[in-house]
Amino acid sequence: MPAIEREGYNPRTCLLYGSRGQALSIFMEEPYFNSKPVGFIDDFSNEAVHQATGLPIRPYAAWKHDPAPILLSMGDPRAKRAVAEKVDRDGLPWARFLPPRMMMPVAAISCGDGTYVSHFANAGHNVTIGRHVSCMALVSLGHDVTIGDHVTICPGVTISGYVVIEDDCFIGAGAAITNGTPDRPIVIGEGSVIGTGAVVLKSVPRASRMIGNPAIPIREMARQRLAMSRA
Amino acid sequence: MPAIEREGYNPRTCLLYGSRGQALSIFMEEPYFNSKPVGFIDDFSNEAVHQATGLPIRPYAAWKHDPAPILLSMGDPRAKRAVAEKVDRDGLPWARFLPPRMMMPVAAISCGDGTYVSHFANAGHNVTIGRHVSCMALVSLGHDVTIGDHVTICPGVTISGYVVIEDDCFIGAGAAITNGTPDRPIVIGEGSVIGTGAVVLKSVPRASRMIGNPAIPIREMARQRLAMSRA
Amino acid sequence: MPAIEREGYNPRTCLLYGSRGQALSIFMEEPYFNSKPVGFIDDFSNEAVHQATGLPIRPYAAWKHDPAPILLSMGDPRAKRAVAEKVDRDGLPWARFLPPRMMMPVAAISCGDGTYVSHFANAGHNVTIGRHVSCMALVSLGHDVTIGDHVTICPGVTISGYVVIEDDCFIGAGAAITNGTPDRPIVIGEGSVIGTGAVVLKSVPRASRMIGNPAIPIREMARQRLAMSRA
Repeated sequence: MPAIEREGYNPRTCLLYGSRGQALSIFMEEPYFNSKPVGFIDDFSNEAVHQATGLPIRPYAAWKHDPAPILLSMGDPRAKRAVAEKVDRDGLPWARFLPPRMMMPVAAISCGDGTYVSHFANAGHNVTIGRHVSCMALVSLGHDVTIGDHVTICPGVTISGYVVIEDDCFIGAGAAITNGTPDRPIVIGEGSVIGTGAVVLKSVPRASRMIGNPAIPIREMARQRLAMSRA
Repeated sequence: MPAIEREGYNPRTCLLYGSRGQALSIFMEEPYFNSKPVGFIDDFSNEAVHQATGLPIRPYAAWKHDPAPILLSMGDPRAKRAVAEKVDRDGLPWARFLPPRMMMPVAAISCGDGTYVSHFANAGHNVTIGRHVSCMALVSLGHDVTIGDHVTICPGVTISGYVVIEDDCFIGAGAAITNGTPDRPIVIGEGSVIGTGAVVLKSVPRASRMIGNPAIPIREMARQRLAMSRA
Repeated sequence: MPAIEREGYNPRTCLLYGSRGQALSIFMEEPYFNSKPVGFIDDFSNEAVHQATGLPIRPYAAWKHDPAPILLSMGDPRAKRAVAEKVDRDGLPWARFLPPRMMMPVAAISCGDGTYVSHFANAGHNVTIGRHVSCMALVSLGHDVTIGDHVTICPGVTISGYVVIEDDCFIGAGAAITNGTPDRPIVIGEGSVIGTGAVVLKSVPRASRMIGNPAIPIREMARQRLAMSRA
């Protein structure tokens, strides 16, 4: 402290698992992370992506025997969990990425295997991030934040202090999560989906699907909207 | 790819059309874009701005015969459209601006004449921006985003993947637009106004005026608020 | 102009008043501000923080006779006011911080004693900030913005043009405040609390507590939520 731990991050080359929007965004950040993607892993070929990037797109089996460190480049937490288990069984290496120090001035941050923090990210003291977490651009993580495995945090999300995000959550673009306290952190229960721009003001149980401000369950929002349209 | 195309961006000098808030913000970014404003175009003189900047403020006719590349520095899409047509008739040159590569690590972005992307902007793969678009600070554009002409995107806006913003839209500060799909992008219809902090969860027709989260038409919001205040 | 005034900012050493989340975040930004914290002022000892930072944590009386410039590192505006009055009575020096110019390309910004602007901050023309203001990461301040004393602006806040934030306000993470006009700025009255993610679309009187989008008083929100849950 306050040096940012960079050992074990930003490998010289990497393989991106997936070949759609998120994979292409990471591909373009090559000069930022100083890590060279050598190909995409995808069971479906994609001529447009091949043309745009010049990189090969091959199914997993084709890379398996000569892999570069792998980054899961997909948004869906369940897809990340399934693929991570497969790659772990094969014992292949994982990549993980942190911004250059100049671009992430704060944060002695701790990240698990296969985790990726994009640019213009902010993080306070005591942030712990699990495995295969995608933390996209312009995200702010407060102090004393714990993030589980396979979580996807979309661009522009603001997470305050004393927050726990359990495994397999998806936090939509521009969402905000208020702060807890040391004794009672705000907890986003396992497998929850926080919708685009939702503002979460209290803990939510596992498998919640929240939208609105203040955020409420999507089903309750639909009920209220219907009632309001008749009011 | 992944080099960011800088040819044709950030001219050595420029003229700012307008002399209010947005023009002055762009003026201050001179060292960032490495482009020197040489004056403001405005039919009304403004001694305070002249004093603050040291630059001349002159009506369009006075610059017309010796112009530097011009940037429209106003927020109102209709004003931009009207001025752009006038300047185009006179065949004067346009400026366009992109952040230095270090500050915009992602994005092989394509911008039309007179378009401006401010600092701390993020953009994914396959972003196409039209003419005379103002994309202000701390904006995130997802992948597969198309933005029409004369659009103004205020600071802190988050636009997700597979989104189309048609001509002449105004997207207010801190607004968020959710993601569409390749087959059904989210479309913000021509001439729409998305209010400050509005969270758009579905396509909106042309000339919509949306506020709230989830965003609804401003007139419907007024009706619901009235009903609620009596509930 | 457009040089950013750096004289009197970012002292070589500093003392952080407080030793919790905000103080630790500022501590980690040492290389960013090029200012070396030499200790924390706190009446309560904190072994974990001492271990994490290597710095002494001592009560105010113990630092009083040999202080470095002091930064108030706490979020609560009333706490900042009380401590600032005490330190002013003793005539001790204040620190204030602005990002390096490369990281804050815009803004000829004016800040009072003890004020701190964190990284990835954006500010337009004619921004005036009072004393002991904390302006955290990823904050956008529009043009013609005036901020009073002891204000705390949390990460990800977007403040538009022609806005006045009076003394002792707390603006929660991810909140947005819409723009006023030169004649009628949006005014956030003294001592108000704007909740996490709240979207303020009109002026609010002093001591308001606002949440939601559009923001309404927290008590009114509770009443409406109850009515809706029964609808």
